[in-house]
Parts: sequence; structure tokens; C-alpha cells
Amino acid sequence: MRKQALILVALAAAILVPPAMAEDGYELWLRYDAPEAGIPYLPADVVTGCTAPSETIRKSLDELDIAFTSLAGEKLPQSRTAGQGSLILASADCLSSLPQSLQPDVTGLGEDGYAIRGVSSGGGKAILIAGESDVGLLYGVFDFLMRLSRGEDVRGLSVEQTPAVKLRLLNHWDNLDRHVERGYAGQSIWNWHLLPGRVDPRYEDYAHANASIGINGVSLTNVNADATVLTPQYLEKVTALADVFRPYGIKVYLTARFSAPMELGGLATADPLDEDVHEWWQAKADEIYAEIPDFGGFLVKANSEGQPGPQDYGRSHAEGANMLADALAPHGGVVMWRAFVYSAEEPEDRVKQAYTEFKPLDGQFRDNVIVQVKNGPLDFQPREPFHPLFGAMEETPLALELQITKEYLGFSTHLAYLGTLWKEVLSADTYAAGPGSTVAKVVDGELTNEALTAMAGVSNVGVDRNWTGSHFDQANWYAFGRLAWDPDASANAIARDWAALTFTTDPDVLDTIVAMMMQSREAVVNYMTPLGLTHLMGTGHHYGPALWVDDLDRADWTPYYYHRATEDAIGFDRTETGSNAVAQYAEPLREKWADVATTPDELLLWFHRLPWDYEMTSGRSLWEELVRHYDLGVQQAEDLAEQWQGLEGQIDPDRFAHVADYLEIQKQEARWWRDASIAYWQSVNGLALPEGAAPPTHNLDYYKSLEFPNAPGQGD
Amino acid sequence: MRKQALILVALAAAILVPPAMAEDGYELWLRYDAPEAGIPYLPADVVTGCTAPSETIRKSLDELDIAFTSLAGEKLPQSRTAGQGSLILASADCLSSLPQSLQPDVTGLGEDGYAIRGVSSGGGKAILIAGESDVGLLYGVFDFLMRLSRGEDVRGLSVEQTPAVKLRLLNHWDNLDRHVERGYAGQSIWNWHLLPGRVDPRYEDYAHANASIGINGVSLTNVNADATVLTPQYLEKVTALADVFRPYGIKVYLTARFSAPMELGGLATADPLDEDVHEWWQAKADEIYAEIPDFGGFLVKANSEGQPGPQDYGRSHAEGANMLADALAPHGGVVMWRAFVYSAEEPEDRVKQAYTEFKPLDGQFRDNVIVQVKNGPLDFQPREPFHPLFGAMEETPLALELQITKEYLGFSTHLAYLGTLWKEVLSADTYAAGPGSTVAKVVDGELTNEALTAMAGVSNVGVDRNWTGSHFDQANWYAFGRLAWDPDASANAIARDWAALTFTTDPDVLDTIVAMMMQSREAVVNYMTPLGLTHLMGTGHHYGPALWVDDLDRADWTPYYYHRATEDAIGFDRTETGSNAVAQYAEPLREKWADVATTPDELLLWFHRLPWDYEMTSGRSLWEELVRHYDLGVQQAEDLAEQWQGLEGQIDPDRFAHVADYLEIQKQEARWWRDASIAYWQSVNGLALPEGAAPPTHNLDYYKSLEFPNAPGQGD
Repeated sequence: MRKQALILVALAAAILVPPAMAEDGYELWLRYDAPEAGIPYLPADVVTGCTAPSETIRKSLDELDIAFTSLAGEKLPQSRTAGQGSLILASADCLSSLPQSLQPDVTGLGEDGYAIRGVSSGGGKAILIAGESDVGLLYGVFDFLMRLSRGEDVRGLSVEQTPAVKLRLLNHWDNLDRHVERGYAGQSIWNWHLLPGRVDPRYEDYAHANASIGINGVSLTNVNADATVLTPQYLEKVTALADVFRPYGIKVYLTARFSAPMELGGLATADPLDEDVHEWWQAKADEIYAEIPDFGGFLVKANSEGQPGPQDYGRSHAEGANMLADALAPHGGVVMWRAFVYSAEEPEDRVKQAYTEFKPLDGQFRDNVIVQVKNGPLDFQPREPFHPLFGAMEETPLALELQITKEYLGFSTHLAYLGTLWKEVLSADTYAAGPGSTVAKVVDGELTNEALTAMAGVSNVGVDRNWTGSHFDQANWYAFGRLAWDPDASANAIARDWAALTFTTDPDVLDTIVAMMMQSREAVVNYMTPLGLTHLMGTGHHYGPALWVDDLDRADWTPYYYHRATEDAIGFDRTETGSNAVAQYAEPLREKWADVATTPDELLLWFHRLPWDYEMTSGRSLWEELVRHYDLGVQQAEDLAEQWQGLEGQIDPDRFAHVADYLEIQKQEARWWRDASIAYWQSVNGLALPEGAAPPTHNLDYYKSLEFPNAPGQGD
Repeated sequence: MRKQALILVALAAAILVPPAMAEDGYELWLRYDAPEAGIPYLPADVVTGCTAPSETIRKSLDELDIAFTSLAGEKLPQSRTAGQGSLILASADCLSSLPQSLQPDVTGLGEDGYAIRGVSSGGGKAILIAGESDVGLLYGVFDFLMRLSRGEDVRGLSVEQTPAVKLRLLNHWDNLDRHVERGYAGQSIWNWHLLPGRVDPRYEDYAHANASIGINGVSLTNVNADATVLTPQYLEKVTALADVFRPYGIKVYLTARFSAPMELGGLATADPLDEDVHEWWQAKADEIYAEIPDFGGFLVKANSEGQPGPQDYGRSHAEGANMLADALAPHGGVVMWRAFVYSAEEPEDRVKQAYTEFKPLDGQFRDNVIVQVKNGPLDFQPREPFHPLFGAMEETPLALELQITKEYLGFSTHLAYLGTLWKEVLSADTYAAGPGSTVAKVVDGELTNEALTAMAGVSNVGVDRNWTGSHFDQANWYAFGRLAWDPDASANAIARDWAALTFTTDPDVLDTIVAMMMQSREAVVNYMTPLGLTHLMGTGHHYGPALWVDDLDRADWTPYYYHRATEDAIGFDRTETGSNAVAQYAEPLREKWADVATTPDELLLWFHRLPWDYEMTSGRSLWEELVRHYDLGVQQAEDLAEQWQGLEGQIDPDRFAHVADYLEIQKQEARWWRDASIAYWQSVNGLALPEGAAPPTHNLDYYKSLEFPNAPGQGD
């Protein structure tokens, strides 16, 4: 009977190819396509240990229905008693209806942990998925189903997983008018105007996708915050979203505009030491928790890029954060206080300022404050050294903030898999407590024994049908979730898992796709900002090259500020003879990076200012090496497009064409970056091109003349 | 064999219900769902008369494949020779391979016309679809397929159709940054940033939908124009869209910013009589036509609401329009010059100004200029009298501009079928050449024997999955196309056709849906602006009631300007004792509307200022009648929601829930409109509520306090 149904489905699938069935990316990595070699194992039925399943357990059962319908053509039957071949779901609250012998010991799996293992049942084998919490169980179900969908034989499985990081958040930089700052996938998925009257089913699809990769928190609004979201009118809308997310184990966070007590409360000040201000925030927190009892807390950008903050009143970041933390503490909420600050006045070296500001505050923050630090000291560049605050704050928990949306890596059109970038940061050794003091160990709390740990990813999600603008950018959302759960996971393995779920389980195709992904970020570094160069993008929108810009309101917003190229030399001296930013790192890094001879090529011009004819370890001059990197980047972009073309016929036509179009754009823009950069450097250094290097397609005036007033994602 | 396949499909459909198959509205009225009673007729095969089919013919064949796959489970086979039961496609360029006896006489069907009729073939019957042009044939194919899908027996069909109006355009008010002015369906579908590198398949889906309802032109950009679209960088993008649209018979138009010669060309003036200005536009037109040989022309908003125009140089609208027309004429392009103008200074009665300005210019425009006039003299209100320019311009072709997007009728959440509104306008008698001089006869050119005729609809399309924000707003897009083709079509029949294609052919369900649609616009009039009141919406965004606003920069942007309510009276005196706007209409309308006794209730306060206790024909006082209309509107909104609830289980669950949510919002907002309006009127007239009328839920201060800074579609 089942076999007949399967044949029928297969036949029908061959006949029925309605347009709506086209692969459009909406289903992300949860397509539950049957693996090439067929599904290796089909449980006989599904059994839960609960008499009255929670909403979360019901979502787990729904997920099994969706997945098996797609993987095997029909749902698993639900049984009341476990037998041979059963799939058994159990959690601390969902045990009682199982026979004693099948009740697993779930204590110790932790808040979000789960186990999957074979058990004996009905005289044969069964598979148990167990969580201490219902959400842990849901995570286990997702893991199990994705393994099945990748073709893994789950019968011998013995998995025990607990997340390394407690709070695994997406940060949406979404405005209330649905503009997404640094968004390249259309408007915000939050339709504030229609909430709460219309709760778009997409909100649940979004929660579903996040839960499948372990994300357990969402900050809904832009860090450049609008106090309006804290009005009753908007909190009603936020509540509707929180209600959708709750069964998926996802908490809602909001960005708190520091001046809200003045803007909404009519107070004369937002001074964090003012009693009325404290009371206003306390009342606001109480108001929020009355509707959203599991509200996560506030994410705050203060005294940075024009945002109000405690320094407006002569108070420190710690005093500001603690005031909010006190308002949230009775309800169990946390404050995520961003360390992305730099002075509004003519600054010291911008990359030094967060450290300068926050290091002295170490130990001054409340227990429910976590300081959120970007991966590098500048701003989500294609490559930066890790942020010197990691390892430097011994008594303050630090959250790692990564940018999933590709503000500086070619928007959504360039393929740049960020798993490699993020792994570079996570595995970087801070040496804070001797060798092995990696950023990962700071972030997971191991190094300083922190209980409050967090990782935040600036979301790349928008209303585009495929969620992220490009199909490959889905991988960055996925990789963020995987790395927040397990910073030790390999970028390569994550890429392969994602591609198998997203495209196909064919191993040859996977080899190609994974190879493309693994080289992609380095390609971007090469054609945009090789050898430690940084922040050379078009001003404001960050689209395309603008190396020549040197006259903005703030010097540290100009590309010139970062490259400082003159006829003689190029680069930013961050050693003792310069800004000495290198001193913010622990030994032996400080010494290594202070010495040009021991600084790796990839960070060379980040730390050093060098003559154009400086001799590199390769024997080439710096100028020759620079041009060589640009050419390599262009070549790599061409390779990506060519590798993809080789997959024609092995990827569904719609997604194949979409990716191919984007790779073609990337190829052209890589060339544009290379040509504009070289034309500019030549205008500065007067040097001839190295032998064999092609001259830029256009002259420098042409590249300077290009304007993109309507580039997406701008920050106003 | 075929029967087996059909059974298989039916069985499979019952088993396979993947999420992506859910009805989400993307396919519009082109779902090609098999009718309830089954498809009444299946041709044996399809035969064309052409040896080398044009792109348009290939689209026709593709459409048959898509439709029959969906309607009958498989494509029609293509045959080389016609036999019994064949479906024969022929056009002037696609005849030669048919036997002489089957070659239809296609002359006289006109540029876009088509015929569908039974013919004898192979000793039996066959069906012929014929167009003079290939596009006419495509229109015929769409008509045929939609008839089949509605369950019509096509065997006895004898249809001959030619459009009443030559240019049937959508006007997109889409900015280059993808913001849509007055858009309630998300961002613009034109992704300018990615064009031409990425040509989204949605552009073709859009063209496909338009072609199915006879739309043959698209103005891509906002009438509040940005000259940037005329730069080479953007014209390359426009060309990519024109290439997609061409096979569907759709021409591209652009909005021309009158000051473009200064902004792009560096000229010191944009004076239309300046030789350099003329040359600049001529060169620009030549540049456009070199890439887009069938470019439609320019749509222009000049000297209105801050837009530049010929009056900036003391020239008339005719001089401005003619200058552009001369630039386009060598290439066959047209200028659509909007009559929506009103003075930037303290004006005479705003509704008089377009007539005052344009009437004296009658006869001064070039042959390739058409003056585009909104349906009413104000601005797309829930109800206005028809625009007095219709019938008043004897020597100037006039295009009718309708607003498909519901700027003033509740955005996309309120159900308001506009077919009834548009029919009210089209069938209005201007009496310009005696009784029967309807607006429709002005627009189709019959009255003044114009060859250049046009109808334009301000698009309600955006990136929302269902295109128009709400499922029911698809009906307005559809109805616009149908009425532009045939202004004599009935609103009821159009609604029924649309609903049958969109939801179901079940006659009982259709009865309910059509009844809902037919009463919906009057419901909106009743709860927003009954008895001839107008323009009482929230300022700027036009969301919700704001009757009390009287202090904007311009008096004629305030609700107060339009209602003029005082303790004693309400309404705008447009008779001789007032602005005498009524004199712009022909007799006997002038006399009829000048007399309060012969003015219909629905236009009463548009033309007259009356005491609150004025006795209506009903015997009730004006105040009582007003309250009664508000209550009726609320009741009608409640009825809509209730009628829809009665269809649960007969509409697919996703669309059912979506519509139900919106109707619930409409119900609440109808109540808000009624309560806020009554609270305000009472604050002015001090009158008690009529017996039985419920007091407003909140006091007036509450309604005044509501703010919607992030309401969608605002005009900046």
C-alpha cells in the first residue's frame, strides 16, 4: 500500500510540474527533498511521552508530518505505544506516558540540549529523540530530519548536543517603515502597519527556519533605534510576534533608544542616574513583561554615530547599561550593550576607540549585561584582525556580533560564504590566558567562566521570496546558527550540510558547490581590499570602489583615512610610530604584528605603512603583489561563474539561472573593483603596471564619475 | 491513457499537498483551475498557421501548454495539419501553412482585435482563434482559456472583439529607490539596482498578467519624476524591461521630468521654446528609440504639486507638451500630459483649476499629445462627480486616469471593488453633445471622432506575493484591464468572471463574492465620506480620519477646506453663491446640480453648503441622515466580514484567512471612521446624537491623538 503510494507520487511528480512548484528558495534548507540514493530509513510510527503535548511538542510533530510527507510521500502514523521501529519523542515534561524502561534520563542535556540514540523497543530497535526541555526536543527533531534528508543512515546514531552559547540571536536592523538598514533582500518582513490585525504566516515560517538552526532570540528593530516601538500601539504588535515565536523557543528583544524617556515620557532628561528616568524604564519594562512574560531584553547602541546615550549626561556606558539592566532584572531580561562606539569629534585611530572606552569599565557591569562586540575593531570588513576587546575583559561577558548581511562584501549579488570569515575570528588566538585562548573560548564563556554567553548575527532576511536576496546568502544565515550553537564546527562541513539540504545530495555536485563557497570570501578580499587594506567602499551605501574619497564630514568615514596612500607609501601605521593600536593586543601578537617582518601579508597594510617598492616575502614589490592580488580576485570571480556553469542540468533551472546571473554580476563588479583600484593607485604612485597586468578598462575619471544614489540598504 | 493520467493526477493531488502549492495569489486570475463541473471541452490538438512563429506566437503556444497542463493534466499535442477537434491559431503573419479553406479573413479585426469561432475541419468541427496581429491572437488565446477555466462551453462560441480604447496603460508611481508612492503592496517590482544584470522572472509574469487583460502599455516611473531614469545607466535597465514586455504587446513609457535638460544636460533653462532645450529632448528621444524602437512615449506631470513645468518660463501646458511631442513624433511616440494641476498659490476652488487651465488650450496640442484627466476633479476620492473636462475639450483627445491603488479607499486592507466606481464615471452623461454623451464616449473617441484614445490606471502592483497586497485588490487590476478594453462591460459581470477565475466556479459561492464586491465601494463611501463629503483622510498618508485638520501649509490639503463645517452648516458651496464650480458642467447638469432640490444625496455636500437641520427628501435632518450613513457603512463592513465567514471551507484556507483578517481590519477601521467623524461633527455642531445612534467609543481627543508616521505609501 505504501509502496503503491510512493510510485503514485513519483509518477505524479513527473507529470505535475505546476509553476508554483518551481524551486524559488522559500523553503530554505528545509525542503526535505528525498536524498539522491533514497531515504535510508523510515520509522514505523511516532510516539510521544506526553498526554497533553505543549505547543512546542505539537510543532515537533507537525515538523515530522511535513518532512515525511516530502521525504517519503506520507506522514508517519502516530501510535500510543512504542514498538519495533518507533520514533520516540521525549522531554522532561513529555515522559509520563512512556513505559518506564523507555523513559530516558534527560537531566544534564541542558536548557536547549538534546540526544538522539537507538533504544530497544518491542523486541527490536527504535530511535529516541530526547530533550530536557521541549525546545531541546524540537532541536533534536530538526537535526534528525535534516540528517535523513542528507541521506545519513540514522539507525546507528548516537548524538548528544548542547549549545556552546546560551543566547543565539538575529539582530534585525529593520526600521518601523520597513526599510532595512544594510538590507539587500527587500523590505523588512515585519509589516508593522498591519500588525497585529494581520499576522502574516511568514512570521511563523521565519521562526521555524531559525529554530531549525538553534537560534533562540530575535531583536526586531534597528540599533539606530526609534522609540516608537516602545509605545503601547507598537508593543501590541511586538506581542503578536512574540506569540508566534514562543513555541519555537525564540524570545523577542527590542532596541531601546536611550532618549525614550524624553521622547515618549516627556521627561526633561534621560540621565541614567536620574530617579525619574529609572522609574520610567522600570515602568516600561513592567508594561512589556505584562504582555510578553518571556521578553528577552534590550539591545542598545548608545553614544555612537549620533545615537543618544549616557555620555550625553557625563555618565559611562556601564552606568547607562546598568540602569536598563536594573529595570529588566526583576523579569529575567538582559541588556546587550554594543561596544561599537567611536567619538563624534576628530578621533584617535577609530579602530582603537572601543577598547579605549570599554576596557576601563571591565567589572562595572551588572550580571545581566553583556557587552556586544563586533568581530573586528572596524566594521564588518572583508578582513580585519579580531577585536582586541576579546580576551581583554576578564570580568565582563562579551557577545560576538557578526554581520550576516553583506554590507561590505558585495551585497547579495556577490557569492561570499562567511563561514570561513567567522571561523577565522572564532579560532583566532587572543593569547589572553596563554596559547589557546581563542575568541571562541571567550565567546562561549570558557575562558573567564561566564554563564551569560551570546552570539548575534545582523540579519540578512527580507521579504524577497528567497528570504536573503540570493540563494547562496541563505548559507550565511544557516552557518551563523550552526556556529552560534557550536563554534568548533568546521566551515567546510557546515557548507556541505547546507548545500546538501539546499541543492542536492549528489556528491560531485556538492564537491563543486563547497569548493566555490570555501574560496569565495577570499576572492572578495582579493578584488576589494587585499593585503590588509580596508573600508575602500563607496561612501554611505558601500557599493563599489571609492578609494579616492577624502572629503566627507568625518575623516574616518573616508577610504583615504584607511589607506593613506601617497606617492611614496601606502597603509596605516598602527605600530608605536603610528597609532599603536597593536598595543591593544596581548603578547605575543603585539610583538608579531608590530614587526612588519612577522605580520602576515593578509594584515600587512592594516598595521603598517610601507613604501610601494617594499619587498614582500614573495620577492615581488608591494605594488606588484597588490596588483597580483587584484588579478587573482578577478580570476577567482571568473572561476566561480565557470564552476557554476558546469552544474547546469544538475540544479533546478530557476535557481540555476538566478545564481548564474548573480555570479555574472559579481564577475563584472570584481573587474570594476580591480580596475578602479589600480587606476587610482597609479594616479597616486605614478607607477607602471607590472608586466602582464592589463590596464584598467576605463580611466580614473570614469570610475569617479559613477554614482549610485539608489543603491539599496542605505542607513537613513 | 489520458483518463488514467487524469485519475493519477487527481489521486496525487489529494496526497501531495506540499506547502509551496498553497494558494498564495501569485497566479492571479490565471490559475487555470479546472472548473467545478470539469472542463467542458478538450481540443484534440493545436495547429498554427505559421512556419516560423514569432515570439508572441510562441508565448501563445506556451500559454496553451500551461493552461491545459493545469486544466486537463496534460498539454495539447501540436500538429502540423488541422483535423477534427483541432484548435487552430492564425494571424496575418501566421496563416501560410494552413490549407486555404482554413485561412481566416483577419483584416478588420484591427491592431489588437481577435475572433474565436467554430470552423469545419477534417470532416468535423474545429475552433479557430484568429487575430490580425500576433498580439491580437495572443489576446484571443487568453480569452479562450479563461472561458474554459470558468467552465464555459466554448464549442458554440462566436466572439469578435476589438478594444474600444487604443492605449491601455498601467501607470506605476514607482521611485527609483523602489518606494512606491501610494503603494500598499510592498516595494516596486522594478529592482533597478540589479537591472539589467538580473532580469527577474517576475517581470515576465507581470507582462503575462497584463496581456491577459489587454493592457498594452506600462509607464514605469512615478509622475513625481526623477530625471535619473533618462540617463544611459538607467535606459539600459529600461531596455531590459522593454525586451521582456515586447512579446506580450506591451510598450514601455517613462515619466519625463520637465527640468531634465538642466539636471542631466547642464542647460541653463528648460524653457520649451528654447532651441537647446528642444534639441536636448530630441537627442534624448533619438537615444531612447535607438535601443527601444517601440518606446511608447512620455507621461508628464508638470506645474503641479511642486513639479517643474513650462509655466516656470511663462509658457502654457500646450507649449510644454508640444515640445516633447515634437521630439517623439519622428519615432511614433506620444505624450500623455496630465491635467492634474492646481496652483501653488492660494487657489480658487481647487476642483475648478484643471478646467480653468486646460479648457482654453483646446485645439492647441499636437496630434500625438493626449491630455490625461483623473476621473473626478479632485483626487481619486471614494466618490466625486466626473471631471468637467470630459466633454468640454472638443479638439483634444482625453485619456481617463483611474487609480487602481486605493490611496483614499482604505489602502489594501479594505475591500472596495472599484468596478462600480469606474462604471459610475464611464456611464456618467456629460451632455456635451446632447443626452448620451457619456464619459465612455469621450474616452473611446466616439464623441469627437478621436483616433488617439487612452485609459490609464495607477497601478496597485508591488512585490507582495499576491501582487496587490490583498487578494480582492487583484480584482481592481483585472477590472481596469477589462474596462479599458470595453467600457461598456458591466461591473457585475467583470466581478463574476474575476471571482470564478480567482476562487471557484461554484455558483453559490460566486453569488456571495460578487454581492460582497458590488456593495463594497458604497460601504467605504458611507463610513468615510457620505453625502458628497470628500478628502477627510489623515494628512499626507491618507490613512484614517482627520476631519479636524485645518492648519497645513496649503488650505486645500486640509479636510476643513472641503467640509467647512461650522456650528450652523456643513458643505462646500459650489453654486453661483459660492465657487460656481457647477458652471463647468454642461446643461442640464449645471442647473440640476446648482439646485439643492435636484442634487442627488450622494453629491449633496460636494455642491452645497447646508444647515445641519436641512430637511432631506427622506424627511430626516441632514445631521440625522449623515449619522445614518455612517451607521450603514459600519453595518455594511460587518456584513462583508460575515458573508465571507459563511464561505469557510469553500475557499482554500490560506486565502480564506488572509481575506478574513483584512475584513476584520476593515470592520474595525469602519467603526473608527464613523466614531471619529461623529465625535468631530458633534464638537462643531453641538448636536445630540439621533435616537438609537451609539455614542463614539472614544472621545475626540483620543482620535486626534492617533499618529501614523509609518503608514505606507507616503509621497516623499
